[in-house]
Amino acid sequence: MPSPTPTTPSYRHELSRRPGGRWRVDAVKQVSYEVLVRRDLLAVEDPYLARALRDCVTGSGTPSDRRLLIVDRTVETLYGQAIDAYFAAHGFAAAKLVLDAHEQVKDWNSVEAVLAAMDDFGVDRRREPVIAIGGGVLCDVVGFAASIYRRGTPYVRIPTTLIGLIDAGVGVKTGVNHRSGKNRIGTYAQPLLSLLDTSFLGTLPARHLSNGLAEILKVALVKSDALFTSLERAARCGTRSLFDDPFHADLAEYITYESIHLMLEELQPNLWEAVLERCVDYGHTFSPTVEMHSVAELLHGEAVAVDMALTTGLSVGRGLMSEEEGVRVLRAMRGLGLNPWNDALGNHDLLCRALEDTVRHRDGLQRLPLTRGIGGHVFVNDVTPAEIAAGVAFVAAHAPAADELQEAAV
Amino acid sequence: MPSPTPTTPSYRHELSRRPGGRWRVDAVKQVSYEVLVRRDLLAVEDPYLARALRDCVTGSGTPSDRRLLIVDRTVETLYGQAIDAYFAAHGFAAAKLVLDAHEQVKDWNSVEAVLAAMDDFGVDRRREPVIAIGGGVLCDVVGFAASIYRRGTPYVRIPTTLIGLIDAGVGVKTGVNHRSGKNRIGTYAQPLLSLLDTSFLGTLPARHLSNGLAEILKVALVKSDALFTSLERAARCGTRSLFDDPFHADLAEYITYESIHLMLEELQPNLWEAVLERCVDYGHTFSPTVEMHSVAELLHGEAVAVDMALTTGLSVGRGLMSEEEGVRVLRAMRGLGLNPWNDALGNHDLLCRALEDTVRHRDGLQRLPLTRGIGGHVFVNDVTPAEIAAGVAFVAAHAPAADELQEAAV
Repeated sequence: MPSPTPTTPSYRHELSRRPGGRWRVDAVKQVSYEVLVRRDLLAVEDPYLARALRDCVTGSGTPSDRRLLIVDRTVETLYGQAIDAYFAAHGFAAAKLVLDAHEQVKDWNSVEAVLAAMDDFGVDRRREPVIAIGGGVLCDVVGFAASIYRRGTPYVRIPTTLIGLIDAGVGVKTGVNHRSGKNRIGTYAQPLLSLLDTSFLGTLPARHLSNGLAEILKVALVKSDALFTSLERAARCGTRSLFDDPFHADLAEYITYESIHLMLEELQPNLWEAVLERCVDYGHTFSPTVEMHSVAELLHGEAVAVDMALTTGLSVGRGLMSEEEGVRVLRAMRGLGLNPWNDALGNHDLLCRALEDTVRHRDGLQRLPLTRGIGGHVFVNDVTPAEIAAGVAFVAAHAPAADELQEAAV
Repeated sequence: MPSPTPTTPSYRHELSRRPGGRWRVDAVKQVSYEVLVRRDLLAVEDPYLARALRDCVTGSGTPSDRRLLIVDRTVETLYGQAIDAYFAAHGFAAAKLVLDAHEQVKDWNSVEAVLAAMDDFGVDRRREPVIAIGGGVLCDVVGFAASIYRRGTPYVRIPTTLIGLIDAGVGVKTGVNHRSGKNRIGTYAQPLLSLLDTSFLGTLPARHLSNGLAEILKVALVKSDALFTSLERAARCGTRSLFDDPFHADLAEYITYESIHLMLEELQPNLWEAVLERCVDYGHTFSPTVEMHSVAELLHGEAVAVDMALTTGLSVGRGLMSEEEGVRVLRAMRGLGLNPWNDALGNHDLLCRALEDTVRHRDGLQRLPLTRGIGGHVFVNDVTPAEIAAGVAFVAAHAPAADELQEAAV
């Protein structure tokens, strides 16, 4: 018997009324956005950014050249004058809110600050998209504020960090920490446009390059052996040199584009996370709790790395990965400037509580992605406290010491 | 030539990659929810509510009988014991947050209180929908909190006021006031289920019946002459008697069901308000600013009534309505317990500012729905300050005095 013709999913968009006061509302929402890489966006002679910011506006009313920019304080120090010059030269009446943006202030107060700026500016909710220029935290905060202001005001993301370029900048998640919960409140709200300018990486501190490489390593480990091998090469040449030395330009471009593509490949079919088995949640099972526990100490990617080290231990323990592969992962991590070990791994109760909270997030099951070999994955629901302890022991035994970094960076 | 066959809208659900680091994400979201009328939900011998609350859960994990209830303080006083008895009798482990809910506390602090209760309860984001029991304000606050907690936690609405039953309870809008803005922050987030129990109206003060009748009058004025005529009948029998006297049961049911249906007819095709010409925005052009200006004095529906009185004046001024029809509208309003006049109408600057803010909300144009006759509407973009003044003069001249109410209620 021939297999049935594949059909496109059928959507319902109607109001049904049944007798006795019963209605059913079915509605369909189409969401679309673009992710575009473009170097040197702020070069004043290049009209690209100005045109993109005018072109993306969806409102049908009279066009407006007013724009509110929300800029990360560090970015303002480095690029503030270039930003002002660019917007002035291209005919925008721009106002600017400079915002501190890091995990310790990723909270409702920062959202309030953005909301107040939008209110004072009198943002027109259709014609004047808010422009976020900064790292992952800034993009998450601005996206959240914009998504709830007048129940949804368009915004544009211009990420300036590696983690922003390949993770926070390309998806639709927004949010801030709340009480003890990592990103406990937020929305799914696509930007109008995400403009990725890798030239910002030239001024990014090495630690923040490593922070982004953690998310790239994540997607490599669960989806692409080839990307992982490239990351091993990057670890050998050194992270700073990867993005600065023209000799490595092809490698840097491959790593950046491929990780964006692999990430979008996972996000697009499951944009609102209706399906809870998400391989891109790899490294995000224990890390939300670990990160909040050591929020002054760890960057997001650093917490993800610790989670990946532990779950590499779990994979090795289950025979999903050879010990040799596990050690390769830990060495690559170190080579990328990421410490596989953190003292949180010595806090067994914290790790068990982290898993419990994740279960609440994943509809009562662990749905824990584990690597299968390098570049594959499997979901498991039955990780035990004893296994966690054994996974920690694997990391303790095999994490390369910091001085082994030097050998790696040949 | 034959006209083209009507086609269903085509939706794009794919990731497109173009050379040079360019991606386009297209994704489609299907949203569905039910609105069900059922009397005496809390009658302990009726398993309907318990079954509905278990049946609506979409998660696939182990079912949970834990539920967090957010209950309006007045509802708690009147129905608290019945609620506790019902949930206990039907096997739920229920926790309850009792919340003050009215326009003056419709703010972020109330959202925080709900978020904290969700966090303390440890709501499982798929299996334990939050239950909102209260009026329109409470439904809006709980819906907002639920929609941002873990980027979306399901919730169920059980409205207990007339405005909740026919307006706030049936749509997908959530939100709270922020700074000087009415519902300035919020989301579009459908409930899993909206359960409408008209038996709650038995304990609703007459002023709150009138508050709901304002939104019913709104939908009648722009969509249904027949509903308006029924409201004139209701005004004659008296609002309390409409819902209490079994003799009027058919009329009350017609008015309730018809207004819900007409409202849903407008909401369903435009659930996220992509189209800004919304006839159900009638009465909501000047009222958001008027309401915030007199927040201690006016209920939402009372502010909407004042807006409708003014815009009735505008329609008469433009010849869209006869003066006789305009007077009929003002008299029906009075008969339903709504004052067409408020001192805010004497504040010309306030009204002009209100219109400006609405223009910011509607993509640079007024898109002001005006009644055309009774039961029809038209959108206009060119209302002038002078017209507003003339509209106010019409209300001042023709609004029936409060003592004329007695004549009306024969």
